[in-house]
Amino acid sequence: MKDRYLDFVNSPFGTSIARSLGLPRPEVLRRHRADQAEFGGMAAIGAGPSPTLFDALLGVLATIGMTGVAHESAYGWLPAAARHGVMSGRFEPRSGDAHAVDRVQALIFDATGIEHSSQLHSLYAFFHDALRSLAKNGRIVVIGRPPATCASVAAATAQHALEGMTRSLGKEARNGITSNLLRVAEGADIDAALRFFLSPRSAYVSGQVVTIDAPSTSPESWTKPLAGRRALVTGAARGIGAAISAVLAEHGAIVTGLDVEAVRGALDQTMLAIEDAAPSAGAHAALVADIAAPEAPSQIAAALAASGGIDIVVHNAGITRDKTIARMSGEMWDSVIDVNLLAQERIDEALLEAHVLRDGGRIVAVSSIAGIAGNRGQTNYATSKAGVIGRVRAMAPVLRARGVTINAVAPGFIETHMTARMPFGLREAGRRLNSMGQGGLPVDVAETVAWLASPGSAGITGNVVRVCGQSLIGA
Amino acid sequence: MKDRYLDFVNSPFGTSIARSLGLPRPEVLRRHRADQAEFGGMAAIGAGPSPTLFDALLGVLATIGMTGVAHESAYGWLPAAARHGVMSGRFEPRSGDAHAVDRVQALIFDATGIEHSSQLHSLYAFFHDALRSLAKNGRIVVIGRPPATCASVAAATAQHALEGMTRSLGKEARNGITSNLLRVAEGADIDAALRFFLSPRSAYVSGQVVTIDAPSTSPESWTKPLAGRRALVTGAARGIGAAISAVLAEHGAIVTGLDVEAVRGALDQTMLAIEDAAPSAGAHAALVADIAAPEAPSQIAAALAASGGIDIVVHNAGITRDKTIARMSGEMWDSVIDVNLLAQERIDEALLEAHVLRDGGRIVAVSSIAGIAGNRGQTNYATSKAGVIGRVRAMAPVLRARGVTINAVAPGFIETHMTARMPFGLREAGRRLNSMGQGGLPVDVAETVAWLASPGSAGITGNVVRVCGQSLIGA
Repeated sequence: MKDRYLDFVNSPFGTSIARSLGLPRPEVLRRHRADQAEFGGMAAIGAGPSPTLFDALLGVLATIGMTGVAHESAYGWLPAAARHGVMSGRFEPRSGDAHAVDRVQALIFDATGIEHSSQLHSLYAFFHDALRSLAKNGRIVVIGRPPATCASVAAATAQHALEGMTRSLGKEARNGITSNLLRVAEGADIDAALRFFLSPRSAYVSGQVVTIDAPSTSPESWTKPLAGRRALVTGAARGIGAAISAVLAEHGAIVTGLDVEAVRGALDQTMLAIEDAAPSAGAHAALVADIAAPEAPSQIAAALAASGGIDIVVHNAGITRDKTIARMSGEMWDSVIDVNLLAQERIDEALLEAHVLRDGGRIVAVSSIAGIAGNRGQTNYATSKAGVIGRVRAMAPVLRARGVTINAVAPGFIETHMTARMPFGLREAGRRLNSMGQGGLPVDVAETVAWLASPGSAGITGNVVRVCGQSLIGA
Repeated sequence: MKDRYLDFVNSPFGTSIARSLGLPRPEVLRRHRADQAEFGGMAAIGAGPSPTLFDALLGVLATIGMTGVAHESAYGWLPAAARHGVMSGRFEPRSGDAHAVDRVQALIFDATGIEHSSQLHSLYAFFHDALRSLAKNGRIVVIGRPPATCASVAAATAQHALEGMTRSLGKEARNGITSNLLRVAEGADIDAALRFFLSPRSAYVSGQVVTIDAPSTSPESWTKPLAGRRALVTGAARGIGAAISAVLAEHGAIVTGLDVEAVRGALDQTMLAIEDAAPSAGAHAALVADIAAPEAPSQIAAALAASGGIDIVVHNAGITRDKTIARMSGEMWDSVIDVNLLAQERIDEALLEAHVLRDGGRIVAVSSIAGIAGNRGQTNYATSKAGVIGRVRAMAPVLRARGVTINAVAPGFIETHMTARMPFGLREAGRRLNSMGQGGLPVDVAETVAWLASPGSAGITGNVVRVCGQSLIGA
C-alpha cells in the first residue's frame, strides 16, 4: 500500500540520487488538509473571442480568495474585472532569466466563445506563454461548450478539439498539475465544478471532460455543502468506501455505511472514527446487509425510510473474482455481475419506487477504468463496470424529472489492500503509467464522489469521471 | 520501418530462443492476399435469449463460405439453420486432451436480444467454452444493440456492458485474434461490417465499437464493391495515403491521388503503380495541390467536377510539427491546425456546395489516437485530430439527408517513415503496448477506410474506428 519509490525519490537523500541517475521523480501531490487554506494565490486567465463566462469565473475567484490576472490576449477581461472590482492585472510570461511574475496556481481558459477552429490559436497563445509559470500541483481548467449544443458544425468541431488540447497539456505539464475540460451549456453553473477542479481535492483527477448542462443552486455553505443531507454508502467498512463515508461526513452529510456481516467489526470501527472526526450526534449509522441477497433492497429501503429518507446513494460495494474466461467458473461470473451491477439496479429501484431517495437526490456509482478499456483476466469485472457506465448514461435522462442526478466515477490505480497484493511488476506499471507517476489514494475517489453529490452539482448528470491521474490506459 | 523483434522471434531460431527466455512472441498477422481465400473454415455461434440477427448472420456466412456451428446454449439456432439449409452442427468445447473440434476461425455472438444484465451469463457460457478453440488470427464479433435505442434502462445497461466483455476478450485472446462489438439498430444491415470484421482485412482493428443504425444495400460485387466509384485521397504520394489509394483502386474505385508539389515525383510513381496493379484505363489521376492554399478548395472541386464528380473523399493529408507548447512557434500551431483540420472543412464545403461529392457519397477522415488521448509534445496535432473527431460527429446528422456518411479512422502505432525516425524506446513502446504486440501497417488503415467507403456501409456514420491493434492508450 506504500509507494516506496515515491517516498524515496522525494526524500532529501533520494532526490539527489534520482537527479544524478536521471530517474523520474513524481511530485508528492498536494491534497486537502483541514489545517491548510484550500485556495489562494494567482490564477492566470486566458480567453478566446467573446468569452461568456468571465463574470461567473471572476465570481468564483473572488469567493475563494484567488487573484485573477489576465493574459494580454484575453479581450473583454478589463470590463469584466471592473464590474467585479477585482484586481485586474495583466499576466506577463516569465522571460528567460528574469522572474516577471510569481508562479501562478491555476491557468483558466474561457473558450466558450470559440466558434471556429482558427480561433483555437488563442489557446496556443495563452498556454505557450503561461504553462511554464504554473506552480507545482497547479491547475489547468479549460471551459468550453458541449459540442452538441453548438449552432454550427464548425463550432462543434472547435469545441471538441479542446479535448485534444486539454489532454495534451495534462501529459506535458507533469509536476502534479491537473488539466481538465468543463463543457458548460448556456445557463448552466460552473461554480461547484470550478471550485472542485481548482482545489487540492481534485489532486488525482486529470484529463477529464465534464459536461454541465443545467442550472444549479449554490449550497448554503461551501465548507459543509452536504449539511443536513443523508447519504448511503455501500461497501463502507474499508478502503474506498470508508474514505467516501468519511469525506461525505466531513462535508456535513449524515452517513449510513453499509457492508456485509463478515466485516461488521471494521464497519463499526469506521463509523465510530467518522463520528469522532465529524460528529453527527450519533446519527451516522452502520447497516449490515448483503446487497446480493434478494431481501436486501426492501430491507435497506425500510431502514432508510425509518430515518426519513436519503439524499445521496453511493454504489461503491464491489468484488473481483479474477481469472481468464476459460478458467472462470460460472459462479465467479455471476457473483461479480450480481454484486457490482445487478445489486445497484435492485437497490435504486427500491429506493426510487418508494421515494426513499428524495427528489433532488444524487446517485454516484463506482465504475472502473476496466469498464472503459477492458482488462485481461477480468471479463466479469470489466463487463459489470461497463454496465455501470451504461446504466448511468441511460438513467440520467429518466431521473431528470425528479431532479435526481446520476454519475459514475471510474478509479484507475488506487492504493488499497487490493493493489497491495498485486504482483510487483503490475503494481509498478499501474502506478507509473499516468501523468502523476503514482497511484491515487481512496480519498481522491471520495472527494470526487462528494463533489458530484453536492447541491452545486445539480447540472451534472450522466457523466463518467475517471479518478486515474490521467492514466495512459483507455479506449 | 522494419520490426526486427517480430521477425526474430518468429524465425525458426528465434522462436526457440524466445521460448526458452520466456519472451513475448507476437503473432505474424494474417492479412489479405489476392492469392489466398479471404474466408473459410468454421465459425462457432453463440447467442443470448431471442437473438434477432441469426438469419442475417447465416446469410453472410453462407455467402462467404464459412460453416456455422452453434454452441449448445444458442437457442433458436436449429430452426434458423434449417431455414437457411446450412450445416447446423453443435459446437463442443475441446476437452482436456481430446480434440473434440478443430480450431474455429471465428466466434460470433448474437447479443441483440439481451435485455437484462443477468442474461450476460450467456456470453460467459459461450466464451468460457469456446475461446480456447479459436485459431490464431481468429475473429471475435459480438453483435448487440445501440444502448440509446433500447426500450428499458436495464436493456441499455446490459447492451453497454458488452463493451467491457468485448474489450476484455481482445486483451485475453492474443495470438493475432481481434475482438469487436457491432451495435446494430433494428432494420440496419450487418453484412458489410460482419464481412470486414471476419476478414483478414481487419487484422489490426480490435477493441472497437461500431454503430450501424440504418439500412444499406449490398454492393453489386463483394470483390469490387467500389467498382465505378470515384475517390479523392489527399496526401496520396506516400505512406498511409498511398496505401489507401491502392486499396480503394483494388476495390474497383477510380482514384485521384492528391499531394503537394514537393512530392510530385513520388505521387506520380504511386499512381502509376496503382494503374499497374488495378488498371482503370488511365482514369486514376494525380492532382498536385497544396490543400492549405486558399485557392485549393475551388481548384480541387473544379478538377473533380470536370471528371463528373466523386463519390468518396478521404482526408488523409496531415502534418506533424512536434514541440512542447512552451517551445512551439505560432506558425507550428497554425500550420498543423490548418492542414489537418481547417483544410478538411474548406474542401468538404467546396465539394458539398457544388454537389461535386454526389449524394450517397462517403467522407472518411484520418484522425489519430492522439486526438483521443492527447499526447505530450503534440498539443497542435492532438487538437487538430480531436477536431477531426468532433467534425465527424457534428457533420454526420447534417449529411444524412443527402445519404452521405462521414466517419473517422484513428490510427495507433503504424509503421511508416515517420515512426521509423522515432527514438528506439518510444518506438518499441508504441509497438508493444497493444493486444497484437506489434505496430500496424499502412494497409491496415487503408482496408478500414475502404470498408467505410463501401456501398454496404451506408448505415455507418459518425463513427470513430481506431486502427491500433487495441492499443492500451486511450482516454
